[in-house]
Amino acid sequence: MNTNKRTEISTLGEFGLIKHLTSGITLGNKESLSGVGDDAAVLRFDNNEEVLVSTDLMMEGINFDLTYFPLKHLGYKAAMAGFSDIYAMNGNPKQLTVSLALSKKFCIEDLEDFYDGLKLACAQHGVDIVGGDTSASVTGLAISITVIGTAPKGTVVKRNGAKVTDLICVSGNLGAAYMGLQLLEREKIATADKDVQPDFAGKEYILERQLKPEARKEIIEKLREENIMPSAMIDISDGLSSELMHICKQSKRGCRIYEERIPIDYQTAIMAEELNLNVITCALNGGEDYELLFTVPIADHEKVAAMKDVRIIGHIVDESMGLALITRDGVEMELKAQGWVTTEEK
Amino acid sequence: MNTNKRTEISTLGEFGLIKHLTSGITLGNKESLSGVGDDAAVLRFDNNEEVLVSTDLMMEGINFDLTYFPLKHLGYKAAMAGFSDIYAMNGNPKQLTVSLALSKKFCIEDLEDFYDGLKLACAQHGVDIVGGDTSASVTGLAISITVIGTAPKGTVVKRNGAKVTDLICVSGNLGAAYMGLQLLEREKIATADKDVQPDFAGKEYILERQLKPEARKEIIEKLREENIMPSAMIDISDGLSSELMHICKQSKRGCRIYEERIPIDYQTAIMAEELNLNVITCALNGGEDYELLFTVPIADHEKVAAMKDVRIIGHIVDESMGLALITRDGVEMELKAQGWVTTEEK
Repeated sequence: MNTNKRTEISTLGEFGLIKHLTSGITLGNKESLSGVGDDAAVLRFDNNEEVLVSTDLMMEGINFDLTYFPLKHLGYKAAMAGFSDIYAMNGNPKQLTVSLALSKKFCIEDLEDFYDGLKLACAQHGVDIVGGDTSASVTGLAISITVIGTAPKGTVVKRNGAKVTDLICVSGNLGAAYMGLQLLEREKIATADKDVQPDFAGKEYILERQLKPEARKEIIEKLREENIMPSAMIDISDGLSSELMHICKQSKRGCRIYEERIPIDYQTAIMAEELNLNVITCALNGGEDYELLFTVPIADHEKVAAMKDVRIIGHIVDESMGLALITRDGVEMELKAQGWVTTEEK
Repeated sequence: MNTNKRTEISTLGEFGLIKHLTSGITLGNKESLSGVGDDAAVLRFDNNEEVLVSTDLMMEGINFDLTYFPLKHLGYKAAMAGFSDIYAMNGNPKQLTVSLALSKKFCIEDLEDFYDGLKLACAQHGVDIVGGDTSASVTGLAISITVIGTAPKGTVVKRNGAKVTDLICVSGNLGAAYMGLQLLEREKIATADKDVQPDFAGKEYILERQLKPEARKEIIEKLREENIMPSAMIDISDGLSSELMHICKQSKRGCRIYEERIPIDYQTAIMAEELNLNVITCALNGGEDYELLFTVPIADHEKVAAMKDVRIIGHIVDESMGLALITRDGVEMELKAQGWVTTEEK
């Protein structure tokens, strides 16, 4: 919440507020014919392009806690989560619409902050804001973001194309956003009702992963440059285990991934240690990393192994073999959407 | 809420629930390449088509009250509200995505009801459900609907094209949905904590207008048949006054509408009388009618006057003349977004 200056939304009214927030927004993509201010945005696409549409609904108290989540960051993150879905289809995000439901606790300055974050994310990824709407809410804040993107005909990558022997790859590192969230929750409790400043020293990276995630555009660009066409792809919003299960289920395959190959940042490991959590569990099940998980034919091994910020973590096997993680000591554990169990325990 | 049978959502889990609700959904439009079950829907449009995108966010306690709003009707209405936005651009709705945020009070049967209504509306308007998502909510229900539609290149009708002397037309009748809402609210209070059945006799029409609105596809079709191209169009979701102000503001024009020309159903009039409300105020400011408000060149007067279920209620004038309603006794009153004042009172 903005505490410096507070202008009530009622001073502008609903229509005035939308106009105020969206003033100065220009359309940069040739596909965007007209945007905010009518019953619908008007777009036009080449028929050599496939059009991708993804919607996300984020709720206060479930998806974010405004006690420690600045509204500018929230706008940025909401946009990035939407872009990430389009990149996960091997597309490029082009347009975004946003609807906000607001309770009375919000003022105009809060909304300006949110839109600043949204606009920053859009500018960085070349996305036009083509629709904006606000309405009332009796409770907290609800944010609905729809992102539209394009991909040249025939280049869309879905979840269902993984083949046996394909390599399983992941960008960046995992579990950091979840650890950032745990840290924020801990400091929220520690500093409640007290004149104590939260202690974030040496933990900047995991905080940034939670508060300012980045959609992995450059990974998609690099794959294109290297002429690597993933056979299946998904973004990691719910955790590696869960996303890997989506790919395997929809591709009708199994998988083997290796504990020692899972990319983890040292700040993530230290934070897990501090909180007495198993870091691999955090990496497997922690959400909101917005990294890309994809499979490539084994013929691309050399190329993908040389890619910066991409790690090969395992391979696709026959469906009958199930989904498993191989631990450092060679034990095979069945992967579950949340956590895992040893195959003996089944 | 479903009171007969209650299966907790936890028995299926989030992914199981989506799969259950969207099973049996098939894609009928050639533009829909793939739908539910990936990071984004995949669509392809002809480059002779303009693509329309509209998003709506509906919140429990603000946009609907589940005490008297059955979930099947809510699904139907949410879809219709989205279709209405696309018709208001002179387009045809083709695809829909839906995101729901659910609190623990909802069971699987509730969601089935909601989807039944949604599917019924989609079937009636030839719309494919291409995305579905559910998440948690700490409070009430939030519904986000995105509708995508198309219109042949050059046929999109926006809000900003009204010219001086253009006729102002409205479909159907106004104020009925608002009167239906007032009735439901009255009976909710009257029957609370008592073993009393609500009394809806002779009020079926206004109830239906609130609980089962219809997007006016046939008006759009009729306009095309008659070769009438509106110069501006909008759907009446917030009330005639407010929508007329949008058209006039964006077209930089004024308007004159006539009290005696405003279409009102007799049930709306009787209900207003019963509740001691001015029926014209209700027709001007009552929302959720989902009728179409449009302007046509005066040369189309004969054709539009002969159209079934369309009424000419006034005409566009120069911006300097402002927006006014002419009462039955010839007094000119300034139109306001909510209500109106006599021009002398200004």
